[in-house]
Amino acid sequence: MAPIGAAEPGSITFLANPKLLLELRQTRATAVVLSAATADESPVAALVAVNPHATYARIATELYPPAPLAPGVHPSAVVAASARIDATAQVGANAVIGEQVVVGARAYVGPACLLEDGVNLAADVRLIGRVTVCQAVRIGERSVVHPGAVVGSDGFGFANDRGAWLKVPQVGSVQVGADVEIGSNTTIDRGAIGDTVIEDGVKLDNQIQIGHNVHIGAHTALAACVGVSGSATIGKRCMIGGAVGIVGHLSICDDVAVTGLTMVSSSITEPGMYSSGWPAEPTGDWRRIVARVKRIERLVERVSKLEARQKELGN
Amino acid sequence: MAPIGAAEPGSITFLANPKLLLELRQTRATAVVLSAATADESPVAALVAVNPHATYARIATELYPPAPLAPGVHPSAVVAASARIDATAQVGANAVIGEQVVVGARAYVGPACLLEDGVNLAADVRLIGRVTVCQAVRIGERSVVHPGAVVGSDGFGFANDRGAWLKVPQVGSVQVGADVEIGSNTTIDRGAIGDTVIEDGVKLDNQIQIGHNVHIGAHTALAACVGVSGSATIGKRCMIGGAVGIVGHLSICDDVAVTGLTMVSSSITEPGMYSSGWPAEPTGDWRRIVARVKRIERLVERVSKLEARQKELGN
Amino acid sequence: MAPIGAAEPGSITFLANPKLLLELRQTRATAVVLSAATADESPVAALVAVNPHATYARIATELYPPAPLAPGVHPSAVVAASARIDATAQVGANAVIGEQVVVGARAYVGPACLLEDGVNLAADVRLIGRVTVCQAVRIGERSVVHPGAVVGSDGFGFANDRGAWLKVPQVGSVQVGADVEIGSNTTIDRGAIGDTVIEDGVKLDNQIQIGHNVHIGAHTALAACVGVSGSATIGKRCMIGGAVGIVGHLSICDDVAVTGLTMVSSSITEPGMYSSGWPAEPTGDWRRIVARVKRIERLVERVSKLEARQKELGN
Repeated sequence: MAPIGAAEPGSITFLANPKLLLELRQTRATAVVLSAATADESPVAALVAVNPHATYARIATELYPPAPLAPGVHPSAVVAASARIDATAQVGANAVIGEQVVVGARAYVGPACLLEDGVNLAADVRLIGRVTVCQAVRIGERSVVHPGAVVGSDGFGFANDRGAWLKVPQVGSVQVGADVEIGSNTTIDRGAIGDTVIEDGVKLDNQIQIGHNVHIGAHTALAACVGVSGSATIGKRCMIGGAVGIVGHLSICDDVAVTGLTMVSSSITEPGMYSSGWPAEPTGDWRRIVARVKRIERLVERVSKLEARQKELGN
Repeated sequence: MAPIGAAEPGSITFLANPKLLLELRQTRATAVVLSAATADESPVAALVAVNPHATYARIATELYPPAPLAPGVHPSAVVAASARIDATAQVGANAVIGEQVVVGARAYVGPACLLEDGVNLAADVRLIGRVTVCQAVRIGERSVVHPGAVVGSDGFGFANDRGAWLKVPQVGSVQVGADVEIGSNTTIDRGAIGDTVIEDGVKLDNQIQIGHNVHIGAHTALAACVGVSGSATIGKRCMIGGAVGIVGHLSICDDVAVTGLTMVSSSITEPGMYSSGWPAEPTGDWRRIVARVKRIERLVERVSKLEARQKELGN
Repeated sequence: MAPIGAAEPGSITFLANPKLLLELRQTRATAVVLSAATADESPVAALVAVNPHATYARIATELYPPAPLAPGVHPSAVVAASARIDATAQVGANAVIGEQVVVGARAYVGPACLLEDGVNLAADVRLIGRVTVCQAVRIGERSVVHPGAVVGSDGFGFANDRGAWLKVPQVGSVQVGADVEIGSNTTIDRGAIGDTVIEDGVKLDNQIQIGHNVHIGAHTALAACVGVSGSATIGKRCMIGGAVGIVGHLSICDDVAVTGLTMVSSSITEPGMYSSGWPAEPTGDWRRIVARVKRIERLVERVSKLEARQKELGN
């Protein structure tokens, strides 16, 4: 498989973005997956698909399957006596597995993973390596967690007591559904009381922060660097752009898209697309704009004065 | 313990947020911690407290104490000969401990932690697991560090030398006070020359970045995803919201609150609350607003022209 | 070595920032590195340099060299039979090294690092500790990677298939050039098809996210918390400020500077400095400004009406 512009004879490629039509016309690939609308433009063998990106994903999965499991526990892994590791599961080098942990059929616990007491991994879960899963967290079938992710660390709960902060024990846990993907160095906090919930099919990119008692609905995708504050609820099939910040204790309904770098500071009750990011300008221009905006009140006053005087003049 | 809305008979809950009064009236909890102002509304046994959240924290700490220590060093841990581990401390599986490290009384070094040479952990410190503490960093009594955090990695110091970057050795360290909490995947850089300082009682949420030679005053709390650039100074008892960005070489006085997604690009010398985040709008509306704002200079010119012409007409 | 304001007799310091002239006049250091322009102001021995910061970096590197290597593989490391570790390289405690990995001359693989199959580390690479390098990633001569960084995890590639997300295998890798520095907890995704490329001399601070198929030109520096979305191209010698967000599939030309918290959402084709961050205001003032800006369309209408009426009055 190769990108459409770099494909050599012998490769298969795909076209999902119509902007790449020129590259299609010049492609050296042996075959291309595309939609009916662009099929006539292909200079090479074309597989016409309703959804070329999805068809490409299926082909790529056939051509590049995950490495086959080598069931068993690596001798360097440290596994508590009460842990139950399915005979078909694989536990990698230097993994540490706590008491009462359950590792399901065909699950993969990569090297250097740390599973605290009471963790439950369902069948076919894959922890790529150096993943931390904290006490009593449950992860559903086929979910994948990438290196450096931390699932179930304490939420940020403190009560202010005469100027100092008193820790509030975080006694909930995290429920991760089936077919979830959790990116590298993403963190998901356990609930304060009650659980943090990630429903089936949710996809979380890298470097995301999910606060305690957040609830994310099925098939919602969050791009990298998003921060979701405690007790926020995000609906199903939402798409949250990179570095979006979502304030706590609010809710976003199903089928909402939020573009990158947006601040969501109140609930969203209508499906649709939402934004608040500012596109870059040359710094000099931007500083002038900022200065004007910061004096916008003055501009409004000038307009009000003009209106009043115009009325006088009109009379 | 249970959330007020989900509590079953046999649980204790609390009410700190008066917006949840309706839930109080319907609660099925056996007892509730609340303030005098809401005590009459409770349908169940009520413990009246001046600060219900703090009282709740204390009760929860009694009911959910941290797991008791099992003093000793796990046989899989790799501990340098010159390290001094207190007999009452616990070192977990696969931990790596460098030369001259000191681990104090009742300290807990969780599984897979990495302590470089010369690290000093005071009494009752708890590193939950997979924490990295770099060379010669000191962590004060009772502080807690969560998985994936890195304390004391090199600051970002480079001198530009005819177009290429020359590394400036980062020869300071990090001093972490007592009762500090450091969240998952948070990073704190060592000083370039002189130390980075985190004073007593500071609470850092997850995914925070603290640059070299930053100084954070006692009992200040930073929410997740905050970035603090090098040599910034933050006062005592500040509250910094999520994803705030703080520019380097500036200072923020005591008792400042900054709301989420704000950019602090010059010093703040007066206590109070500061902001610069933009709440989300439907994308179409937002794009129109952005386009207008980017032409605000033109609007100001139109107003000036109106004023000049009105003056003429008035004469 | 010591900061100019805190230096004691016996230390050497430097002055690169002319704002610190007052501190120079009062310094107790034994010697100071500075430029010709400020040399006359020094009360102590002065080493005059064209680029005092670079000269200081060279002196500091002499005074604080990296710890010398202790070649060999720590007995607790788990190294695959097919890995080739140069005899002059060092592999630390609890490292895990996969099949076909190549570790070059004088390379340092710190404690608890995880190198997946097929990784290639060139001569003099240094992985400080607890670094993850994924399958088939190549890292060039003298590059340094800090704790918690993940190089080569899967990109965020999913095709939407009737409401659910289908994973697109990420079959590219990451090419990291020579003299690159990668900060703590930074993540760099492997290419979807084709590689993610980090050219020579690039410096990446902590907590950065680099999406799949990003290309970063030589000697570009990114400050902490930057997010770069997939397939973005950044030129050579750029300087990207903290927490900048760069949208995918765009390109930034050589010699661009972007100030902190800016959103780059379209390509930049001219060298220069770009911004879109909003400096903080007291919250009350800020809320008034936001409210005015959100009604800017109304203000424009008022001005248009004034203009029309003025024209009538003028006639």
